Amino acid sequence: MTTIAGYTYGQVPTSPVTLDDLETLKATVLWSDDDTAALKLAGEVLADQVDDVLDLWYGYVGSHPHLVRYFNGSDGNPDGAYLDAVRVRFGQWIRDLCGRTWDADWLAYQQEIAVRHTTDKKNRTDGVDSTEAYVPLRYMVAFIWPITATIKDFLGRQGHSPEQIDAMYQAWFKAITLSVTLWTRPYAPGTW
Amino acid sequence: MTTIAGYTYGQVPTSPVTLDDLETLKATVLWSDDDTAALKLAGEVLADQVDDVLDLWYGYVGSHPHLVRYFNGSDGNPDGAYLDAVRVRFGQWIRDLCGRTWDADWLAYQQEIAVRHTTDKKNRTDGVDSTEAYVPLRYMVAFIWPITATIKDFLGRQGHSPEQIDAMYQAWFKAITLSVTLWTRPYAPGTW
Repeated sequence: MTTIAGYTYGQVPTSPVTLDDLETLKATVLWSDDDTAALKLAGEVLADQVDDVLDLWYGYVGSHPHLVRYFNGSDGNPDGAYLDAVRVRFGQWIRDLCGRTWDADWLAYQQEIAVRHTTDKKNRTDGVDSTEAYVPLRYMVAFIWPITATIKDFLGRQGHSPEQIDAMYQAWFKAITLSVTLWTRPYAPGTW
Repeated sequence: MTTIAGYTYGQVPTSPVTLDDLETLKATVLWSDDDTAALKLAGEVLADQVDDVLDLWYGYVGSHPHLVRYFNGSDGNPDGAYLDAVRVRFGQWIRDLCGRTWDADWLAYQQEIAVRHTTDKKNRTDGVDSTEAYVPLRYMVAFIWPITATIKDFLGRQGHSPEQIDAMYQAWFKAITLSVTLWTRPYAPGTW
């Protein structure tokens, strides 16, 4: 298996979010065993399409100056090496979201992903000297829409029934909402 | 027109979020004129179903102790008058989201809704002595899923085509994501 630069799954501190907190959040999005199965299937459907998904998402970010600026280097232009390094981890994130068990390790890594968007840790993993010290909370939350809505087409490309596609899409939507919720914690730890 | 207790649309201070910020957020969810039209149509479809939508949402909140607790009075039990007062404004919020122009008044009222979930203003509008001083950020964000996913069925009840229903649903999903994004600002004003 290829080593992914900056990918430290299983090697990060325990999350301040407890497994009980996670269960409560799962209840909030009415997470069910059917969702677990549908998300696993989604991971299988997406496995060979991860690069296509990333092409779409990077096209979306790249075409919006107010978004791509968070990949700026010190010269105020997008840093290609930074974009590339994040892209590889972004792909692994798709695989992990669908394929990993949501246990303490998974929860710990969501916190790691979270802090990598804030002043505490953005730019450090990739050693970037960026003009942007953090990704604003507004875009973390707003990204729920593009990251969810764009996936349905990919879920429908391997001959599954409309019911299966819808089940995968609903599980993905729940999983994205829940993941982003976890990623917002460092922005307001006292009232999260 | 019946007066709604605590409903102060058009009578609140200018939002710290600018109309330019709003345009940027709309761009982030790829908001289009088609979405504007589809959301308006959604408002017409939902107009006579608002109470049914609220029945569903209140059933969902009421059946989850970790959610209904934010309607607690000082005795630690849900306060019926508080639940009822919020419900009437919640219904008006559906009408406003779909029917109002997203101008400075609309933006100002999103900020008002936002702060009414935080320690600054929760419980004050309805004069409630609650055990809960604020609604945690985690539930504000997680609510994107139930508030979105539950609406599709209602959008399909008035004989529109699958394409129209999907357009209304996508516009609703974008509008909810954008609204909740605005509502998160008071939780992290410095990094929003």
